[in-house]
Amino acid sequence: MAYAERVSDSMSAPSASVEPSTVAELGESAVLARILPRLAPGDSAILGAGDDAAVVRAVDGRFVVTTDFMVHGPDFRLAWSTPFELGWKAAATNLTDVAAMGARPTALVVAIAAPPTTPVAVLEGIADGLREGLAHLAPGAGVVGGDLSASSVLTIAVTAFGDLEGRAPILRSGAQVGDVVAHAGVRGDAARGLRLLFAEATDASGEPDRELAAALRARHPELIAAQLAPSPPVSAGVAAALAGASAMLELTDELARVAGRLAEASGVGLDLDSARLGDDIRLALAGAEDHGLLATFPPHVTLPAPFDAIGLVVDDAGRLFVDGAPVAAEGWDPYAGWDGRAG
Amino acid sequence: MAYAERVSDSMSAPSASVEPSTVAELGESAVLARILPRLAPGDSAILGAGDDAAVVRAVDGRFVVTTDFMVHGPDFRLAWSTPFELGWKAAATNLTDVAAMGARPTALVVAIAAPPTTPVAVLEGIADGLREGLAHLAPGAGVVGGDLSASSVLTIAVTAFGDLEGRAPILRSGAQVGDVVAHAGVRGDAARGLRLLFAEATDASGEPDRELAAALRARHPELIAAQLAPSPPVSAGVAAALAGASAMLELTDELARVAGRLAEASGVGLDLDSARLGDDIRLALAGAEDHGLLATFPPHVTLPAPFDAIGLVVDDAGRLFVDGAPVAAEGWDPYAGWDGRAG
Repeated sequence: MAYAERVSDSMSAPSASVEPSTVAELGESAVLARILPRLAPGDSAILGAGDDAAVVRAVDGRFVVTTDFMVHGPDFRLAWSTPFELGWKAAATNLTDVAAMGARPTALVVAIAAPPTTPVAVLEGIADGLREGLAHLAPGAGVVGGDLSASSVLTIAVTAFGDLEGRAPILRSGAQVGDVVAHAGVRGDAARGLRLLFAEATDASGEPDRELAAALRARHPELIAAQLAPSPPVSAGVAAALAGASAMLELTDELARVAGRLAEASGVGLDLDSARLGDDIRLALAGAEDHGLLATFPPHVTLPAPFDAIGLVVDDAGRLFVDGAPVAAEGWDPYAGWDGRAG
Repeated sequence: MAYAERVSDSMSAPSASVEPSTVAELGESAVLARILPRLAPGDSAILGAGDDAAVVRAVDGRFVVTTDFMVHGPDFRLAWSTPFELGWKAAATNLTDVAAMGARPTALVVAIAAPPTTPVAVLEGIADGLREGLAHLAPGAGVVGGDLSASSVLTIAVTAFGDLEGRAPILRSGAQVGDVVAHAGVRGDAARGLRLLFAEATDASGEPDRELAAALRARHPELIAAQLAPSPPVSAGVAAALAGASAMLELTDELARVAGRLAEASGVGLDLDSARLGDDIRLALAGAEDHGLLATFPPHVTLPAPFDAIGLVVDDAGRLFVDGAPVAAEGWDPYAGWDGRAG
C-alpha cells in the first residue's frame, strides 16, 4: 500500500485495539507480542527476532551499516507526525544512507525507548510505518531484531544494513575534475514542509498543534509528506553504482553543505548550474532533510533515472560555486537547531 | 589497561580538556573530532566512520547482530556511573549478546543522544569506556560508526556484530534431556551492587548521591563494578560453541527467568542444584544484570572454562526446578521497574 493511502487509513481508524492501553499496563512481553507480528524479517534474515541476537546474510562477505536516532523534540513532534510516519521516516532515512554507499538495503534493527504512558497503539503505528516504508522503498529488506526500553523521551534508533553485491562502496572522495554532478530526489520540499508546519501548525504560544497540522496536510500533501514521511530514491543508489558513479553522499543536511563535504573529501570544486536547481535556489541549496542523493559521474555516462545533472566537477579544491560564483556551505547543527521543546 | 586502573585514573584526573565546554558550545563536528580519535575501528572494519555508512567484514557470509539501549534514569544514574563506566557497560552488555550466539564479536556502532548542556568530557569518557571495554572483553573488535543527536535524556544505543566463523548459531531451543546445565560469570553480584547503591548511595530524599557512591565503591569495589561496569565472560561464548553447547542464552535478566525461557524454547525442564548456586540461592536466581552465560552441553562434554555445571536438563517441558522442587521464574519489566527518577 502506498504511503498516502496508509496515512489516510491510519487517520480515519487510528488503531485496531479495542481497549486503550499503555506499554506499562501491558508490559514488555505483551507489547512485543503485539509489535513483532507487524514486522517481517525480510529475505536476508537467517535468524530473526527472538533469541539474543539475529543472524543476517552477507552474501559477498561484507555488510554496509549505518545508525541514526530520531528523538522526540529535536527530530519530530508528536502533534505533527503520526506514529506511522515516524516508523516510515526512521526506515527511509537509514535506507538512504545505505543506498548512498551504492548498496542494496537488506535489513534493519530497531530500538525504541518509550515513556511508560505511551499507548501501545503508538508502537503498533511505528511498526506499521517501518514495515510499509521498507516494502515501498526497499522491497525484500526487513526488520531482524530490536529492543524495547523505558525513557521519558520517545526515542527511535534504527541501524540499517546493505549488500554491496561484490562492488566497491561509493565514497565521498572519488570525484574527478570533469565529472558531472547529479542529484536524485526532491530539492527543498522537506524544508518547505517544515517551514509551513512552524508557520501554520502552531498555536498562539508556538506549540505544535495537531488539528492545524491535519488541515495543513490536506492543503499541501506533498510538502508535508516530504518533511514527515519522505520517499527518498533508495533504489537509485545501486543504479548509480552500476552506472559508474565516482562519488556519492546522502542529503540529510543541506545540498550546499553536503556538496562542500564531497568537494573537500575529493580535493575538487563543484560548480552548480542555477538553472538546474529550481525556482528557489536558496532553498534548494540551504533546505535540509530532503534525503536525496548527490553523486558524481564520469563525463559521457548516461545518468540513471532519477538523477539529473546539476553541475560539473571543477579544479578548485574544496570549494563550491553556483554559476561560477563562490558559495558558502550553510549547515545545521543538532545542538544549535533545537529550541528544547517537544510538542 | 584493566577496568579498575582506568576508573581510578578517570576519577583522579577527570578529563584532559583545559576549558570546560558543552556539546552545544562546541557543535557536532568539533565534538566528533574529539571523540573519534578515542575509538578504533578494529580488525573487521573495511571502511570505518566518516562516510554515510561503514563497511564491515563478514567472512563466512553471515553476521550476528544485536541492539540495546541505555537510558539515563531507568538504566543508569549519572551520580553513580562515571562516563567511562557507561561506555564500558554499553560495550559489555552488547558483546555478551553476540557471545551468547556462539559468535566472536567483530564491531559496534554507537548512537548517542545527549542534552545540549552535556560536557564534552562526558562523551569523551563514554568513548574511552567503549574503547577499553572492547579491548578488555573482545580484543580486535572496534567501533565502526555512530550518530550524535540532541535529546533531553542522555541515551546510548549500541548495535553489535559478530562472526560465527562457519558454525551454526547456538539457539535457546537446542537443549536435550540429559544435557548438563552450565553457567559462566558472576551470580547475583550485579544485584548486590545495585542493592548497595540504593541503600547506601542515596541521600535523605532517595536521590542518587555521587560522594556516597564513591565511598561505597571504595568499600565494595567488586560488587559495584559488577553493577556499573560488568566484565562478562565474552570469550566463553565461542568456547561453548566449540565444545558443542546445545543451547545458550545471555543473563541480562534473572537466572530463573532466563532458565525458564531456555526450558520453554527447548521443550525441556531444567533442574538446578542448589549446592552449585552459592550462599544466597534466592539472589543467584532472582538477581538481574549479571550478564553471564547460561548454556547446556551434551553429557560427557568437558565444560570449557569458566563454565560451571549447575544442573541437569530433565523431562518436564518448560519447567524450572531447584533440587527437584518447582520454582517460579521471577522477572523484571523495564516499564514496571523504573520509578521515573533520573539522578
